[in-house]
Amino acid sequence: MPTDDRGRTPQRTQRERKMTPLTFNHRLLTQEVRFGTGLAAVNVGQAVTSLGANRPMLITSAREESQARRITDGTGVAAVFTDVVMHVPREVAERARRVAADADVDALIAIGGGSTIGLAKAVALTSGLPIIAVPTTYAGSEATAVWGMTENRTKTTGTDTAVLPRVVVYDSDLLSTLPTGMTVASGLNALAHCVDSLWAPKADPINRAHALEGARLLRDGLVGLSAAHGAADEVGAAQEVASRELTLAGCYLAALSFSSAGAGLHHKICHVLGGTFNLPHAETHAIVLPHVLRFNAAAGDAAHVGRLAEVFGVEDAVDGLEELYERINAPRHLGEIGFTKDNIPEATEHIVAAAPKDNPVPVTEDAMTRLLMQAL
Amino acid sequence: MPTDDRGRTPQRTQRERKMTPLTFNHRLLTQEVRFGTGLAAVNVGQAVTSLGANRPMLITSAREESQARRITDGTGVAAVFTDVVMHVPREVAERARRVAADADVDALIAIGGGSTIGLAKAVALTSGLPIIAVPTTYAGSEATAVWGMTENRTKTTGTDTAVLPRVVVYDSDLLSTLPTGMTVASGLNALAHCVDSLWAPKADPINRAHALEGARLLRDGLVGLSAAHGAADEVGAAQEVASRELTLAGCYLAALSFSSAGAGLHHKICHVLGGTFNLPHAETHAIVLPHVLRFNAAAGDAAHVGRLAEVFGVEDAVDGLEELYERINAPRHLGEIGFTKDNIPEATEHIVAAAPKDNPVPVTEDAMTRLLMQAL
Repeated sequence: MPTDDRGRTPQRTQRERKMTPLTFNHRLLTQEVRFGTGLAAVNVGQAVTSLGANRPMLITSAREESQARRITDGTGVAAVFTDVVMHVPREVAERARRVAADADVDALIAIGGGSTIGLAKAVALTSGLPIIAVPTTYAGSEATAVWGMTENRTKTTGTDTAVLPRVVVYDSDLLSTLPTGMTVASGLNALAHCVDSLWAPKADPINRAHALEGARLLRDGLVGLSAAHGAADEVGAAQEVASRELTLAGCYLAALSFSSAGAGLHHKICHVLGGTFNLPHAETHAIVLPHVLRFNAAAGDAAHVGRLAEVFGVEDAVDGLEELYERINAPRHLGEIGFTKDNIPEATEHIVAAAPKDNPVPVTEDAMTRLLMQAL
Repeated sequence: MPTDDRGRTPQRTQRERKMTPLTFNHRLLTQEVRFGTGLAAVNVGQAVTSLGANRPMLITSAREESQARRITDGTGVAAVFTDVVMHVPREVAERARRVAADADVDALIAIGGGSTIGLAKAVALTSGLPIIAVPTTYAGSEATAVWGMTENRTKTTGTDTAVLPRVVVYDSDLLSTLPTGMTVASGLNALAHCVDSLWAPKADPINRAHALEGARLLRDGLVGLSAAHGAADEVGAAQEVASRELTLAGCYLAALSFSSAGAGLHHKICHVLGGTFNLPHAETHAIVLPHVLRFNAAAGDAAHVGRLAEVFGVEDAVDGLEELYERINAPRHLGEIGFTKDNIPEATEHIVAAAPKDNPVPVTEDAMTRLLMQAL
């Protein structure tokens, strides 16, 4: 791709853009989404019935157990497993599998965050048991067929449609106690999934549909949560619930688009920062996003950045994202979460090696050094 | 819902809209889409392999048989059925089922329009054989789990995931010989699916994502086809291919959104006009759409009409659609396809009886009479 003397790719004309052949393979996967605030117990009950199950196993953390038991009351729970550990150690997965087999369960109900749903996936991987996932965080694992386990400090991951939850039950009430800062960081992590999907290796019109609608819901949800924050009246409380619903629906669409489109430049950068320097996941994504958007915005139409400007209701997508970050008081500096200037050379080297070959703007060490300096 | 003295529903404020609870059930279904111009044979071959099949049955019309044989060359076709008849007569379906059973086939490759894919669905319904659908029209049947058969002039329809094609292979070259007028009418029929999905009974954020991206692709595709029409140079030919790709991808997203969201007011009106007065399908949809949009636009945000304005790149969605119709020389008058003023009372009565209860603007006989007069 030609670049001008400042290393930017010139915007292609509309006519040229339209003549790029549209070629893609996209795999839609079966999943039922039951969405409704205050309806978790009702929807879980109906999901168990619709799967023809009557001896489900409940997987949840000890901290969430009492709430989870209320949600699964009357479904005939035949086993409960509460020993949820981060990153799904293989030993824990094997114990959960034995509990499932011993109790002859016929479905898995996972109520919790990414580690809980991840554990259910590990059980489904070998047993084929259908999962009903009830997320209590915005992590998004419920929308993907990706599983992961750790053993001897090594993480193994894979993709298998057997682990994709058959039913996802979303109830925004279950996320109401998350601290605002965490909700903002999670929402921006999801927004980063949407933005990155526009130029990711498997970007296509179906992923773009999910990504852009997800971005819109997340923007409306996060702005609404920020506006409702501190409003102690009834209207404020209702707006908070409605905004949380939008954020949650946005996270689902973000996960759908990302799991299908694959990791673009943004995710490769964050993967390096998280893996090599142990930075916190959601905050890293939130902080890095505006800088990658600014970088890839130089590709214009080729990166579909104009579509994001529409989502933000402004002329320029980069300005729109900056404005959103101001309004919701988003985290802005890698320096505040443990990254230092000294880390930049090592990070840059890894990033250039990992960057997608077809990123709409060429990824050089110089460019990445500038990007990380700005994010610092 | 309150209305003002001219029968319109006042626009709700953004804050009120945001506080409407978001409640929905959505079922995503497994389907692989392989999209690429000139790649039909390659993609069909890979699809057969990925299904583990080696004795597929080819279903296609006699008129399309030679093209279909070229596409399926080398896949080990074990039977060919070319007796495709409109509306899938039960007797034809039963003959096709016998051919499939006698030849012990392990997959169905349907290459053709709605009747051909419909016949493959009838065979899959009783046999469970996986379908690879290769559409040669913009009808959209390949994206739905709906089947239909006729017997004694009565049509029976149903929904069964067994009939949803496992793989859809889109190749815009296969649609290049369709007359422009038919392409425009089909594209607008698909656009009507998108628009109607915004306020249909099962409207939700996932259907909206598909509907709005579909509308955008259809708009770009139809405008591009119209601009390329008559341009005899190479650039014109390339633009025509690219525009046909956009139209085809838009039709897929339209079918996805419609099959999940269900029929809104627009489809109920067209169903009455088609069923009672035997008007042609795509043209009827194309002609009626602007009038239903104008009617429901009175509900403003409640009907998400503002989102369509964005798709058209204008302030007002109704103006945007009118402008599109001008540019692409769309059909405009029901009077030209066989509908008369005398038909209006009977049509109105049926429409009011069939209209969705939750249409964002109340559907009265007076309002429908005015709408049909305008469409005449």
